[in-house]
Amino acid sequence: MDPFLQAAIEEAKLGLSEGGIPIGSVLVHSGIIVGRGHNRRVQKGSVILHGEMDALENAGRRSSAFYSECTLYTTLSPCAMCSGAIVLYRIPRVVIGENQSFMGEEQWLSDHGVQIEIIQDPVCIKLMRDFVANQPSLWAEDIGT
Amino acid sequence: MDPFLQAAIEEAKLGLSEGGIPIGSVLVHSGIIVGRGHNRRVQKGSVILHGEMDALENAGRRSSAFYSECTLYTTLSPCAMCSGAIVLYRIPRVVIGENQSFMGEEQWLSDHGVQIEIIQDPVCIKLMRDFVANQPSLWAEDIGT
Repeated sequence: MDPFLQAAIEEAKLGLSEGGIPIGSVLVHSGIIVGRGHNRRVQKGSVILHGEMDALENAGRRSSAFYSECTLYTTLSPCAMCSGAIVLYRIPRVVIGENQSFMGEEQWLSDHGVQIEIIQDPVCIKLMRDFVANQPSLWAEDIGT
Repeated sequence: MDPFLQAAIEEAKLGLSEGGIPIGSVLVHSGIIVGRGHNRRVQKGSVILHGEMDALENAGRRSSAFYSECTLYTTLSPCAMCSGAIVLYRIPRVVIGENQSFMGEEQWLSDHGVQIEIIQDPVCIKLMRDFVANQPSLWAEDIGT
């Protein structure tokens, strides 16, 4: 498997082990992970620290030139907020573990010129299917439904 | 002046007094401010704590029913990331201090049924004009350009 998607999955599993929502993400620049993150709704009582946002935050303050050379890996299709962050920082490429459990703003990202790759990875799918089945109200809260 | 826009301006001025970017926001539910925030890029080294995101974060974990009764006030037109958060949580109404210094994703918000009111408040405009003139590189970093 792609080692960066594997790292995002490790983040998702770490979140699950903390009692959180199993979605992970890594930001990659020049073949190096510069930011890792996972959903922290439960752990930090946060409504903005989705996995992708956490990875971006942990990557620290960066220039537009830096972001323009990055790829964001995420275990799940990015929601409107995370897609908005990708658009804001003009990250050109996003690798998505799966979009069967949740379909984010992929079309909007494509409209903004973001290159998207969908893996439909079975580990990512199982993590989310089990989580949504076990904690539907927490999942609904996380996606504003 | 609308007291909630005034509160958002106070947040923007607080951010400026801390050496930060002067953009503030408040989330209002049933006539009560439930979350206040301002841009924290400088203060916390944060790339995700725009004023609107900070206000949402400080409002804590809320249900979709709660958000559906909220209005978000912000001193500046919301960027793609903040607009994405508004879309994610289905906040139905946004009051914007001004959009002359920066035009965010207002059309996209409207396309999602968000009611938008633009004030073009002279205090909001002056705060941003002075800031952008004084710190153009910091401003560019904040909007990913």
